[in-house]
Amino acid sequence: MRMAELSTDTGVPVPTIKYYLREGLLPPGRPVGRNQADYGPEHVRRLKLVRALAEYGGLSIAAIGELVRHLDDPEISDNNLLGLGQLMVTARQEPLPGPHVERARRALDELCARRGWKDMSEHPAYATLVGVMASLEDLGHEAMLASLPEYAEAAELIAEADMRVVGELGDRERTLEVVVLGTLMGDTLLTALRRLAQANVALRRYGPK
Amino acid sequence: MRMAELSTDTGVPVPTIKYYLREGLLPPGRPVGRNQADYGPEHVRRLKLVRALAEYGGLSIAAIGELVRHLDDPEISDNNLLGLGQLMVTARQEPLPGPHVERARRALDELCARRGWKDMSEHPAYATLVGVMASLEDLGHEAMLASLPEYAEAAELIAEADMRVVGELGDRERTLEVVVLGTLMGDTLLTALRRLAQANVALRRYGPK
Repeated sequence: MRMAELSTDTGVPVPTIKYYLREGLLPPGRPVGRNQADYGPEHVRRLKLVRALAEYGGLSIAAIGELVRHLDDPEISDNNLLGLGQLMVTARQEPLPGPHVERARRALDELCARRGWKDMSEHPAYATLVGVMASLEDLGHEAMLASLPEYAEAAELIAEADMRVVGELGDRERTLEVVVLGTLMGDTLLTALRRLAQANVALRRYGPK
Repeated sequence: MRMAELSTDTGVPVPTIKYYLREGLLPPGRPVGRNQADYGPEHVRRLKLVRALAEYGGLSIAAIGELVRHLDDPEISDNNLLGLGQLMVTARQEPLPGPHVERARRALDELCARRGWKDMSEHPAYATLVGVMASLEDLGHEAMLASLPEYAEAAELIAEADMRVVGELGDRERTLEVVVLGTLMGDTLLTALRRLAQANVALRRYGPK
């Protein structure tokens, strides 16, 4: 198909398609004559992926470009691609230095060890966890840290469900989309369900307001 | 103690204390002579609460004012106060109208019913859930919705742990602080732990990258 048809099929405007081509987010079409190229179903799929990552995943064009390069690189294993997608949607908040940081680090290492998790100290989420745990101690709310084993158990329950969905796909393009969107939208689902569950547990314990 | 001492004790600058007094976030001190007032330990505690809600909870002065008025109102039950605190840190994203919204609503009602949760359709988190579930269908990712029962189970596990911490406090000021900070910081802990759990489940399934 020509670029005009590609645009109609995907709802992506022609100038945007040209921009994606220049940035390497979309592979070039097969040249047919001067200034004309032919596009196939792989271009439709790639365009849909790029749009989903940009609009729903909130990823920058640079980040999508990096993912797309890995997607097309046969040297990158599926598992590695999955890890890269996950890192793109993982915030890293460095803990502020303070007396409680070292203790938080030890507590988190113990928590990981108890669940049989590998050394995670290089993962950006590890830094975030240490920071929040140290802040809770700073604020005199170390009692909240007693819930961490349940939090970790719940996280693993969810991760197993997440990986089941990913494992059933078997298509790199689709897998990458699910990892990025599933991670982000899953966060929203999870925190919203936590609110409903809290309201229900409170209702069960204390009765109606 | 005088205002200068209250400021030293809490680290809150005198102009900020005066602002909080004007806004009703801090009850007035006991008048001693002209333009002088005496402040007690209840003022120290209240100031710490206001700072924690503003700095760590990200609540506006108006929102804190509302919570503080409820805190001082003996007509408001502990459970009601807890619910109000939770609502202050719950985003409500209305779903965009679309063909999948009604189906998402039914799926969520079923999910709640299976867990024995009460009708939650008035809760702001309910609207957010319907919106995300409908978006996943719009994007052709309805397969992800198959994980929702595990998400809800995990959410309940966490809510039980959250309520255990809250139930052990027995002090309204402290409870409100824990509900607001615990809800927000708990979200961060949970989503970060989910990342570590995903990395570990992937490692277990597919081996090192």
